[in-house]
Amino acid sequence: MEMPKPNPKILARKAEFLAQLANILPPDAIISDPFETRAYECDALTAYKCPPLAAVLPSSTAEVADVLRLCHRMGVPVVPRGAGTSLAGGALPTADSVILGVARMNEVLETDYDNRFVRVQTGRTNLSVTRAVEEHGFFYAPDPSSQLACAIAGNIAMNSGGAHCLKYGVTTNNLMGVTMVLMDGTVAELGGAHLDAGGLDLLGVVCGSEGQLGVVTEATLRILHKPEGARPVLIGFDSNEVAGHCVSDIIKAGVLPVAIEFMDRPCIRATEAFAGAGYPDCEALLIVEVEGSEDEIDVQLGKISEIARTHNPVELRQSNSADESARIWLGRKSAFGAMGQINDYMCLDGTIPVSQLPYVLRRIGEMSAEFGLGVGNVFHAGDGNMHPLILFDANKPGDLEKCEAFGAEILKLCVEVGGCLTGEHGVGVEKRDLMSHQYAPEDLDIQMAIKDVFDPKWLLNPAKVFPLAASEPRRIAAE
Amino acid sequence: MEMPKPNPKILARKAEFLAQLANILPPDAIISDPFETRAYECDALTAYKCPPLAAVLPSSTAEVADVLRLCHRMGVPVVPRGAGTSLAGGALPTADSVILGVARMNEVLETDYDNRFVRVQTGRTNLSVTRAVEEHGFFYAPDPSSQLACAIAGNIAMNSGGAHCLKYGVTTNNLMGVTMVLMDGTVAELGGAHLDAGGLDLLGVVCGSEGQLGVVTEATLRILHKPEGARPVLIGFDSNEVAGHCVSDIIKAGVLPVAIEFMDRPCIRATEAFAGAGYPDCEALLIVEVEGSEDEIDVQLGKISEIARTHNPVELRQSNSADESARIWLGRKSAFGAMGQINDYMCLDGTIPVSQLPYVLRRIGEMSAEFGLGVGNVFHAGDGNMHPLILFDANKPGDLEKCEAFGAEILKLCVEVGGCLTGEHGVGVEKRDLMSHQYAPEDLDIQMAIKDVFDPKWLLNPAKVFPLAASEPRRIAAE
Repeated sequence: MEMPKPNPKILARKAEFLAQLANILPPDAIISDPFETRAYECDALTAYKCPPLAAVLPSSTAEVADVLRLCHRMGVPVVPRGAGTSLAGGALPTADSVILGVARMNEVLETDYDNRFVRVQTGRTNLSVTRAVEEHGFFYAPDPSSQLACAIAGNIAMNSGGAHCLKYGVTTNNLMGVTMVLMDGTVAELGGAHLDAGGLDLLGVVCGSEGQLGVVTEATLRILHKPEGARPVLIGFDSNEVAGHCVSDIIKAGVLPVAIEFMDRPCIRATEAFAGAGYPDCEALLIVEVEGSEDEIDVQLGKISEIARTHNPVELRQSNSADESARIWLGRKSAFGAMGQINDYMCLDGTIPVSQLPYVLRRIGEMSAEFGLGVGNVFHAGDGNMHPLILFDANKPGDLEKCEAFGAEILKLCVEVGGCLTGEHGVGVEKRDLMSHQYAPEDLDIQMAIKDVFDPKWLLNPAKVFPLAASEPRRIAAE
Repeated sequence: MEMPKPNPKILARKAEFLAQLANILPPDAIISDPFETRAYECDALTAYKCPPLAAVLPSSTAEVADVLRLCHRMGVPVVPRGAGTSLAGGALPTADSVILGVARMNEVLETDYDNRFVRVQTGRTNLSVTRAVEEHGFFYAPDPSSQLACAIAGNIAMNSGGAHCLKYGVTTNNLMGVTMVLMDGTVAELGGAHLDAGGLDLLGVVCGSEGQLGVVTEATLRILHKPEGARPVLIGFDSNEVAGHCVSDIIKAGVLPVAIEFMDRPCIRATEAFAGAGYPDCEALLIVEVEGSEDEIDVQLGKISEIARTHNPVELRQSNSADESARIWLGRKSAFGAMGQINDYMCLDGTIPVSQLPYVLRRIGEMSAEFGLGVGNVFHAGDGNMHPLILFDANKPGDLEKCEAFGAEILKLCVEVGGCLTGEHGVGVEKRDLMSHQYAPEDLDIQMAIKDVFDPKWLLNPAKVFPLAASEPRRIAAE
């Protein structure tokens, strides 16, 4: 992955920059010792690493504004960081940038059950938002796999989804307003605890903007009343293709499960060996979960089972208790860990029209043979959000490059069938150079012109999202 | 309403402009006769009128691009127009502008039931989208009151909602992609038949942008499977305040009706006199509709009735048949017509946090006395989208101005309690000068800078959305 060369002028002024930082932040909020900055050298895309110039951990919106104002004045690039769980390298530093971590800003600022929202500082983890409101019977819907660790800041940056977004939508559907600090230190309020926006909907473009436009420090989040209950059905098939058709049929029939999860044989086997969830040894497995009262659940699971039976499943196991539900989910929830036990893997993220599932799975299988690298599929099938896990050996020279090339082909395939090269992980550095497969030069130009509006000096989250060649003229003009 | 003076240079070149138009459009697609252009002098906000320089009715995206390219070259402002049903003056022309109507572009381009979308030209009316897919059991969810007439183009421009958006969301939640022609004739594709966007989510900012950024000619719309059935319950109260509390309690309890409609006494009386729906003569009336199987409907209506009973309703009438449902909806659906029979009225549109309903209704009542103008309230209470109808006499000098002043106070009140000055009608000319009550100068500046990116010459839909004084420096710089 090509990264721009660090700016020697900034490196030369490091001492001056740190002295200025010391004027606006307490000592324990500044990390500049080269040994300690190593903790920020990468995020969950560990294939790429680079220690930053420094890292700062402000405690308030005002401190964030002070830091950005200083960096703006001195021309120091800023890499915003939530919990560092990005799988696309969204928080990868450059050697001349400062990591701005929001981890210390994790307070609940306001809960309002009448109007069903909670306002939090964005360093708060996803799951702890639900923890803060669950005793009143509410929850925050988006549930990325990393929800125990990942921060709301990162969820907003990447427009994160999760297993349950089929019913509840992704972050953008559950985000009502933000406080965002612009690169020059201006504090902007977008949206709020109400429907719609007057004029242009900037909140919509901020959500999913991967730290390119500003640093989001506070967020107003929609909370929902917990359903009475939820239960899944597990359905096994002897072919990925048939499982894909079953997903289409469930969606088409108008049943609205909260989740339709898909695992293929490599994942099923790894998961069974790891977690022993009692999954059948078959080609493809669906976990379909519905919510409501016990009666509603029975009716819906009945309909889903009826549809599944027309596809001759090799297994159909409807949960009738909390214990059975937990057993069914156990395997799915440990799938990533299980795959990690047997191999290094790269987790991809792309979306496709649901009807293309069978074709895309078949093509991935063919490519796997061509590249000589195994691949496991475990993903949110209901909304066509795929997560192929490409297996490789990090210690084998050339394997990572082969894996990247294979991954790029899969994402191009997603675009080709009418999908998108990202679902919920974002573009980051990982897919930066694939953006030109998704977008025409004019489309990329408009996106970059909007970045210009918010960050005219191009200091925020450098070398992400836009292909380096495409953004070069604007970056040079900004200097 | 102050409008900018027409540019004499454009008026002087009218003949040349029409000659150029004749090179790119067939004769019947160009309307320039001053008698005929009168048909385009206003939209549904009939208080403001101005015939355009000309109107054009292209039949394809290519023709739209040709027209825009010509206007861009000659500096002629363009006012995009769907069906002309805007209540905010979103399609009000200026004397030097050309109306670009998409009414002839009303084809269904693609239906895909597997992936649940329909792709249409944006001149198609809202209701006829549902008509095109209903025989397969699908529907398009956003349902503005004007759905028989209003075009998808206008729905996208204003991010329209409707009675059922409590459950299904507004246009932005049901829009998957658009083809948009920029002012310089560039054709851009945003979004598509898949989840999420790579890079910046431009679709989000285009939806609700009121024709400021480009002309949307094609749209990919999410279609949903029709629910098995739906039935409402009608609940009458002796106080607006108590009705407001009942709405809060229903929302808070986690029941998710598809619609919660609210009418106050002036509306109830006018409606009864007009339609004879058998409504009780009380202070406030709620119509709460739920969907599902017959059993699910019974369970949900039971819960809602239980909540309502704790507020001592004066009437509680649960529909048990299609006939009873139609009777309950009859009054609500004729409310606007009924009010129009007895008075001229101005229909406002603002959103507030649901818990503020009782306070805001009381304040509107007090202001009604202060201004000496009657007001009726009929609106989507579930999501806090208010539609006060201010009654006035169009033939009485000064009454319109008084009505406008009253309306402005109501919208400022919406902002004050944490809401927004628009819900689904947009800003248009109507609320242009109120935008500075909602937004700080920095916030407006960012919005206008984004307009600069898409429309650097400021030719699209002039004098709308942004306060004239705020936009003047940019408009002058653009000349």
